[in-house]
Amino acid sequence: MERKLRMGMVGGGRDAFIGGVHRMAAGLDGLIELVCGAFSADPEKSRLSGEDLFLDPERCYGTYAEMFAAELGLPAGERMDFVSIVTPNFLHAPIATAALDAGFPVMCDKPMTLDLAEARALAAKVESTGLLFGLTHNYTGYPLVKEARHRVASGELGAIRKVVVEYPQGWLAQAIEKDGQKQADWRTDPARAGASCCMGDIGTHAENLVEYITGTAISELCADLTTFVPGRTLDDDGNVLIRLGSGAHGVLYASQVSIDEENDLRIRVYGEKGGLEWHQEEPNTLLMKWPDRPRQVLRTSGPTLSDTAALHTRLPAGHPEGFIEAFANLYRNFALCLDCRLHGGEPEPHYSDFPTVWDGVRGMAFIEAVVASSQSDQKWTPVAS
Amino acid sequence: MERKLRMGMVGGGRDAFIGGVHRMAAGLDGLIELVCGAFSADPEKSRLSGEDLFLDPERCYGTYAEMFAAELGLPAGERMDFVSIVTPNFLHAPIATAALDAGFPVMCDKPMTLDLAEARALAAKVESTGLLFGLTHNYTGYPLVKEARHRVASGELGAIRKVVVEYPQGWLAQAIEKDGQKQADWRTDPARAGASCCMGDIGTHAENLVEYITGTAISELCADLTTFVPGRTLDDDGNVLIRLGSGAHGVLYASQVSIDEENDLRIRVYGEKGGLEWHQEEPNTLLMKWPDRPRQVLRTSGPTLSDTAALHTRLPAGHPEGFIEAFANLYRNFALCLDCRLHGGEPEPHYSDFPTVWDGVRGMAFIEAVVASSQSDQKWTPVAS
Amino acid sequence: MERKLRMGMVGGGRDAFIGGVHRMAAGLDGLIELVCGAFSADPEKSRLSGEDLFLDPERCYGTYAEMFAAELGLPAGERMDFVSIVTPNFLHAPIATAALDAGFPVMCDKPMTLDLAEARALAAKVESTGLLFGLTHNYTGYPLVKEARHRVASGELGAIRKVVVEYPQGWLAQAIEKDGQKQADWRTDPARAGASCCMGDIGTHAENLVEYITGTAISELCADLTTFVPGRTLDDDGNVLIRLGSGAHGVLYASQVSIDEENDLRIRVYGEKGGLEWHQEEPNTLLMKWPDRPRQVLRTSGPTLSDTAALHTRLPAGHPEGFIEAFANLYRNFALCLDCRLHGGEPEPHYSDFPTVWDGVRGMAFIEAVVASSQSDQKWTPVAS
Amino acid sequence: MERKLRMGMVGGGRDAFIGGVHRMAAGLDGLIELVCGAFSADPEKSRLSGEDLFLDPERCYGTYAEMFAAELGLPAGERMDFVSIVTPNFLHAPIATAALDAGFPVMCDKPMTLDLAEARALAAKVESTGLLFGLTHNYTGYPLVKEARHRVASGELGAIRKVVVEYPQGWLAQAIEKDGQKQADWRTDPARAGASCCMGDIGTHAENLVEYITGTAISELCADLTTFVPGRTLDDDGNVLIRLGSGAHGVLYASQVSIDEENDLRIRVYGEKGGLEWHQEEPNTLLMKWPDRPRQVLRTSGPTLSDTAALHTRLPAGHPEGFIEAFANLYRNFALCLDCRLHGGEPEPHYSDFPTVWDGVRGMAFIEAVVASSQSDQKWTPVAS
Repeated sequence: MERKLRMGMVGGGRDAFIGGVHRMAAGLDGLIELVCGAFSADPEKSRLSGEDLFLDPERCYGTYAEMFAAELGLPAGERMDFVSIVTPNFLHAPIATAALDAGFPVMCDKPMTLDLAEARALAAKVESTGLLFGLTHNYTGYPLVKEARHRVASGELGAIRKVVVEYPQGWLAQAIEKDGQKQADWRTDPARAGASCCMGDIGTHAENLVEYITGTAISELCADLTTFVPGRTLDDDGNVLIRLGSGAHGVLYASQVSIDEENDLRIRVYGEKGGLEWHQEEPNTLLMKWPDRPRQVLRTSGPTLSDTAALHTRLPAGHPEGFIEAFANLYRNFALCLDCRLHGGEPEPHYSDFPTVWDGVRGMAFIEAVVASSQSDQKWTPVAS
Repeated sequence: MERKLRMGMVGGGRDAFIGGVHRMAAGLDGLIELVCGAFSADPEKSRLSGEDLFLDPERCYGTYAEMFAAELGLPAGERMDFVSIVTPNFLHAPIATAALDAGFPVMCDKPMTLDLAEARALAAKVESTGLLFGLTHNYTGYPLVKEARHRVASGELGAIRKVVVEYPQGWLAQAIEKDGQKQADWRTDPARAGASCCMGDIGTHAENLVEYITGTAISELCADLTTFVPGRTLDDDGNVLIRLGSGAHGVLYASQVSIDEENDLRIRVYGEKGGLEWHQEEPNTLLMKWPDRPRQVLRTSGPTLSDTAALHTRLPAGHPEGFIEAFANLYRNFALCLDCRLHGGEPEPHYSDFPTVWDGVRGMAFIEAVVASSQSDQKWTPVAS
Repeated sequence: MERKLRMGMVGGGRDAFIGGVHRMAAGLDGLIELVCGAFSADPEKSRLSGEDLFLDPERCYGTYAEMFAAELGLPAGERMDFVSIVTPNFLHAPIATAALDAGFPVMCDKPMTLDLAEARALAAKVESTGLLFGLTHNYTGYPLVKEARHRVASGELGAIRKVVVEYPQGWLAQAIEKDGQKQADWRTDPARAGASCCMGDIGTHAENLVEYITGTAISELCADLTTFVPGRTLDDDGNVLIRLGSGAHGVLYASQVSIDEENDLRIRVYGEKGGLEWHQEEPNTLLMKWPDRPRQVLRTSGPTLSDTAALHTRLPAGHPEGFIEAFANLYRNFALCLDCRLHGGEPEPHYSDFPTVWDGVRGMAFIEAVVASSQSDQKWTPVAS
Repeated sequence: MERKLRMGMVGGGRDAFIGGVHRMAAGLDGLIELVCGAFSADPEKSRLSGEDLFLDPERCYGTYAEMFAAELGLPAGERMDFVSIVTPNFLHAPIATAALDAGFPVMCDKPMTLDLAEARALAAKVESTGLLFGLTHNYTGYPLVKEARHRVASGELGAIRKVVVEYPQGWLAQAIEKDGQKQADWRTDPARAGASCCMGDIGTHAENLVEYITGTAISELCADLTTFVPGRTLDDDGNVLIRLGSGAHGVLYASQVSIDEENDLRIRVYGEKGGLEWHQEEPNTLLMKWPDRPRQVLRTSGPTLSDTAALHTRLPAGHPEGFIEAFANLYRNFALCLDCRLHGGEPEPHYSDFPTVWDGVRGMAFIEAVVASSQSDQKWTPVAS
């Protein structure tokens, strides 16, 4: 790359959570600089948020439409190169569509849209514009998740038989949305979150992780979603039996009422010849399991890792890399690919690996299937492909 | 107690596995002595097995029928006081029935019978004879499992919302029954094991643990059982959605093809006010989870445990107690209760706590329900109560 | 063996701690039966203790001298075969000497004597009588400790460079001996415990573990012992730099004032080619460390263990074996060796492995050296060999 | 702050390790931007390194002297605000001195200088210039290390009795410096590293962590340093008995030959009323230990943490923060304090907390003491204060 890529942001103003993560992740490797934003639906708040970030006040916009128009008016050497969308779910599709229509590549938070139809329309838009689109299913950015995917793909574990993926959290065990907790407020509101709270917010991460590591889609499922906290409309817990196209069977569960669980995404995969286990809260360890020799403890930056793990690692072993670094791997790869698009060249194949609009479509199909299944008396519900 | 209780054993000859565990467990506290046995269907092997155990050759019998008859002929001060049954599943009911008919109390391995009808008949027999009957669902013998039950019962966690119980093993990931592995051989044979391999052998332990700790029965379930290893008739893996009578939802899974998992029974229970987690492979730790204060690490013999945990512990904290000690707690309690039956007195209430014939009935109802559910297109199958 | 070996016990009456452990350990494998005892200096308490254990009242003696005399008077087929000594330290030497003089083999608790001179005299007595003598440095009874020793001996780790052994406990962080806690009372009393409390009671276990696993003696050391709790005479904490005869350097520390540490004996050994780590509170795991391949998690009963580990294991992997089972391995081996002495035959070599009077001499030399070093201004103090 | 602070860097060119960490850490919060550098003693390499970082080629200097002169010539609104020094040890003092003389505040890597005399001279220079000086003892940047310090300071643990700090690494177990490994090359060279390799590079981190958490200086020590790998001059392993001014005793060890240990800094502190434990490789957990209630597991962003921990945390609980985030806390605090110096205002007290030149003096006094002690026959060596 010859210069940093210029990023504009929609959402992520004062009081937001994930916007700051996107900014730290985007900036970590010095490849991307934030140049403008429409940080809030409230223009004054947008301006103040931009001030906090030392942005040119001229480029702190009141609305995303205004931003797209104004940036298009800037010379090519100044104009933003892509948009990062970090709003609540219901705004993803309209903003992303407008950005693509304006010719801006997009990095978008997840779940991608409000429903599957919207997701498919967005995918069609991405295809028709030919622009780059990334989705922040950030857990696939961890080096050892990439290692896990590599080990399955290599055939080292044999045909996969069983998958167990768990994602318990406890922060919604009480009705904190009633006390004005902003993150809880929109996630429990169907109009802004979509058809599911728990399965949409974190179940899709679990689904994405299973499909990323195994390289196989969930083909059918049987779900039991529950709303435990009185007054809620959407699910805050769900248990799902899953079957993968490859013939593997498994369990996927997610919960927001599992008290004192923080962000405990965990996956175990077992094949005919071996197994593996990874845990997001201790992300620098990957266990490898064998029938006839001792369990191995793979470590980020440790010996015998694949190139892909190494290329997504910044520090020597024992220097813990965490959530932000994994998130940054998505932005880094997106940036390297975008730079090739803009200035020519072919990205190193390992750097082409980040979630796309098709992961977003899968996620929305999953949400639709679990919600339908949970309301059905029929045992198995197919997941649209 | 004034003297040791005299135990006879059926099964558990040379090459058996669980018989030796029963003997170590029964003997650990010095309350029970083995005095006779019908250790094998092969009379010579039975005799040799008794010789290994320094038994009087006169009391090493060729068949259980012979043993019951001969022991009845001995004077009251010599005759065995109860029978321990450690054969493969299909022999449990006939032997236990014969023992009860002969007037001998019974300690029986699990699963209790071949099917639910047999289990109910055995329960009726126990009721009609009024004799003591114990079942070795041994995991409930751990002090911290008793603590977990106590904490739920005390209301400390509030109403239970979610239960996750997992029991992966890997030892049947290949068809070792074809190589003459004796433990695998009968467990994969419907004639000797019953309608299920994985769910019968270990799924019932998971079911028993859930019901013991929560104090609530699984009321309905949705199961996906699989036979992964070619050539097998019975399941070697199963995933189950469960609902408890109390309104809690959960997941139960068991597996014998999860490579390199040893005996990884693990349970997490979450209520409205707190949660807990226990793991059989590190049985001396119980995690307590709270919404507003740090996680607590309870330890066997540690501070703030209940009386019931303390009364099932033999060593100071940090001196690991394991599988045999937990198993021995069942025999210890059974012995203390039996002694009261035989010689008068009331057992200390904490010592009345061991699995009974009704736990066996529950287990067989669970097996019958998971097998039926797995073959059904209907989502929920009730568990007979 | 043709019959159980008959054990007599000195000490271990009501209220004692370690006597019960010895009895459970001795009885676990069905090779030893307790037939008599002098359980307390108080004859009535001795009698009541024997009654608790269902012993013949005739064989519950008021003193050990009485016991040795009376048992010698019994016919060979009835008389006890050996003595187990479980009293406070200061009584070990006189009782063991008397037992050996009376012709009885001895299993003795540790530390072996009050001081090094006494230890050497006892060793001379063992040598001159030619009788079997075992010492319960029980931590070497764990299967994975034996595996660790085997791995070092095999050369797999290369020449050993560094050893770190830690033994923190917290139970003496307050002056509980003033409240009549019996275990604390004698351990903090020089007349009954010897020259050291912390280093005598648990530091010697650490020393023994280092020397057992590395196969090398500590040759010199530099100690800083402290008495933290006011009113005590003896150390309740100590830090020691150690050097081994082989050229390895290391750290050994023990503490009884490390609050909330239970019995946290832990050892790490590093050689030129690899390392290992073992932790008593999770005794069924042994970590193997390599420069160029992933860490391995060895497990009791897991794949690739040596014969010696397998021969000291009773259960399949994942069925936790603990403190009592490890302790029982010492008694089992002692019994098998004693049986060969009594009835001819050669013990299986792996079964000859239990701590002897020479381990006791090493332990007393270690205590003497750490106490001398702690009082010295000189950096290094040799350990007598 | 009204605008980002402008940072210049000395060292950290292509192939360097720690320079990249400093850049990621400095940039993480968007408060600091890199504007210039003298990245290498080789001017061409310096230029290329700057190009990699998208810097203005005019501000990629061939030497630090050139950089200081040129930057002084720039207008106040463009000129760099401070210098980050990330060279090998022997260059720290001359560069820092020159920077301070030129009026630039300094952020410097550790150990601070080549020896204690140089450290004292640098401290005097800092005092005389009155300029801000930070030292990257980065492990004190972790939120739970700050929590640990807070807990000790609050008196919750009572008077501290015992400290155990361990820092094993394995990367120098072979003579990789002979194969041109650049990091190993200068660290094993007395001319560039100073009087110690292992104790200088990582032992000082352990010393700093002890003194930071306990708030007390190590007053005397007894060290056994070893050079295990043939051909080396400096120590690659060391064991140290320590005594703190407050009366606490302890153990400090560091090693670079502990095979397969990554960066395993770990500390345990025990007081009269409680204890704590923290481990750098799992930095989001802090264990609290009590005599009479269960161990508590504190977690980054979890309940009941102090303000200081919260103010050094960026993400919700369960979203792992790692090495870079902790390192960034030093830069963030340094930047906020520097901004107040430059533009007025008082920093929030929690943000004044970063290691200073006096931590560097302590570190050099520690190195001098351990090296002297290791060569001495005298037991205790005082640490200069």
